[in-house]
Amino acid sequence: MKPLVQLQEQVAEAVKNLHFPAEPADLYDPIRYTLNLGGKRMRPALVLLGSLSVGGKIEDAIRPALGVEVFHNFTLLHDDIMDNAPLRRNKPTVFARWNTNVAILSGDVMFAEAFRLVSEAPPAVLKSVMDVFLKAAVEVCEGQQWDMDFESRQDVNIDEYLNMIRMKTAVLLGASLEIGALCGGGSAETARHLYDFGCNLGIAFQLHDDVLDVYGDPEKFGKRVGGDIVANKKTYLKLRALEKAGAEEKVALQQWYSGKPSDEEGKISAVRALFDQLEVKQDTSTLMNDYYRTAIDALRNASVLPEYEKALIAFAQNLMERES
Amino acid sequence: MKPLVQLQEQVAEAVKNLHFPAEPADLYDPIRYTLNLGGKRMRPALVLLGSLSVGGKIEDAIRPALGVEVFHNFTLLHDDIMDNAPLRRNKPTVFARWNTNVAILSGDVMFAEAFRLVSEAPPAVLKSVMDVFLKAAVEVCEGQQWDMDFESRQDVNIDEYLNMIRMKTAVLLGASLEIGALCGGGSAETARHLYDFGCNLGIAFQLHDDVLDVYGDPEKFGKRVGGDIVANKKTYLKLRALEKAGAEEKVALQQWYSGKPSDEEGKISAVRALFDQLEVKQDTSTLMNDYYRTAIDALRNASVLPEYEKALIAFAQNLMERES
Repeated sequence: MKPLVQLQEQVAEAVKNLHFPAEPADLYDPIRYTLNLGGKRMRPALVLLGSLSVGGKIEDAIRPALGVEVFHNFTLLHDDIMDNAPLRRNKPTVFARWNTNVAILSGDVMFAEAFRLVSEAPPAVLKSVMDVFLKAAVEVCEGQQWDMDFESRQDVNIDEYLNMIRMKTAVLLGASLEIGALCGGGSAETARHLYDFGCNLGIAFQLHDDVLDVYGDPEKFGKRVGGDIVANKKTYLKLRALEKAGAEEKVALQQWYSGKPSDEEGKISAVRALFDQLEVKQDTSTLMNDYYRTAIDALRNASVLPEYEKALIAFAQNLMERES
Repeated sequence: MKPLVQLQEQVAEAVKNLHFPAEPADLYDPIRYTLNLGGKRMRPALVLLGSLSVGGKIEDAIRPALGVEVFHNFTLLHDDIMDNAPLRRNKPTVFARWNTNVAILSGDVMFAEAFRLVSEAPPAVLKSVMDVFLKAAVEVCEGQQWDMDFESRQDVNIDEYLNMIRMKTAVLLGASLEIGALCGGGSAETARHLYDFGCNLGIAFQLHDDVLDVYGDPEKFGKRVGGDIVANKKTYLKLRALEKAGAEEKVALQQWYSGKPSDEEGKISAVRALFDQLEVKQDTSTLMNDYYRTAIDALRNASVLPEYEKALIAFAQNLMERES
């Protein structure tokens, strides 16, 4: 059995070996740059795991796996323009290092290259793999649009938030496993159960992220604890707090979340105290565990090799216990 | 037999019937807006013509035809951001009417929808259709990048220019016919000949456009005659003139083409006089006719129904004789 970490290393090697033309340099240099920024290669490793778990081979799924990784990096490249982000993995973003036009067009080519790689799925499952991939690709864009819309809206409710993180983050994790299972010769049903496993796990993963932002260990978290609070970002904890708050707490929350404070650490402490008072960390854990259990139930319904079922559960547990 | 104009009308109807979700509005309204701006629907009509010409049906090719049209409109949407263009077909561009972020993301979704439509090609030819489409899609992006690169380069030679217009304009015309022929059950060889027909014709079409910009009838041209000259745009006529010019003419050309003149009509007349002197209109016609003949030769090698061979030749002649 191949553990996930070994698959991630194998994908990382395969990404290095992807070949792009030398010219036009302003089109292909940013693509090479983006793909060399690193990353955990989680999604393509899940594609391979999907194939192996139904008895398929790595070769059945490696090209679509690379396609999913190129797609994911394309979304980051275009998101960085939209978010006006200067840095990604501590290096200048393409948009900052080159310019907006270069970032738009090299992103477009990455999207096309992603499709090309995904279209190298085994011919017998090509149409179903394309369908899964395209649905996820459109939903990721929809998720990004909702996320941008939410920045200027004051009436975002929890269902809308959960739907946004499902689309922006979770569906691609689910689609990765489903594509892998289809490539490896699994039934459409099992592939769909693996999608549900990945998608529910993805939502739990994002909720866990929301908790870590407020309650993470600064030594381990990697990002600044309280960063979402300082940035007035809508998270599950914030929306749940607003939902539970009494009149006074609501006013306090709304005041802290309006504008930029002079004392950022003071704001973080105050908001955290309100969250504690309203017990939203517990609520988030409860909801996270619901999604986690739904994910595991979906996995139980999938016809996968026992050792890979164990590997997928271990992967899920790791995600839920991570501190960074 | 269906004449091209009837196919264009049929495609125009089918474009109107494409359905997109209501929300997120900032993602899908711009797509509806873009597809409703109109246009000749030339490329999808060529996809249908490709299918019919090998004895296939319209239904075999209509979805990929729509995919090609959505793709073409996606490239216009993103090009308008890069070119900072306020208007398209006399209406505000998406980027101008909404904003850059909306134009980027709705373009991305159009690209995905284009793939989805193309992936509805008949299963037996799906992989070959995807290959043709993806190669053309990447080349269109490469063409756009070269076009942008050429703006700031003084050493562009004629071969580079011809290669740029081949990628930016011609390959998608060729790919449209090839995709149609594959969907309609034509052989790979015939489909490739139709690609060569469309691609060579596309280069001739662009050269004809370069001529019309300088020598077109202002009453019929639709755009401003001399627009490329005022904008210092590199065209075949300009590059050929620079190639043939003696020392004095070269200096004169370079002076006219540097910066923005106070007297635009004076510049147009002066540059046109230099073009006349150097006989570059004749050279362009000669080259255009070479590409036209190569296109017709390719068509002769394709196994197409006689009445559609005639229709394709009539289409080619129309393109060469058009005055707008």
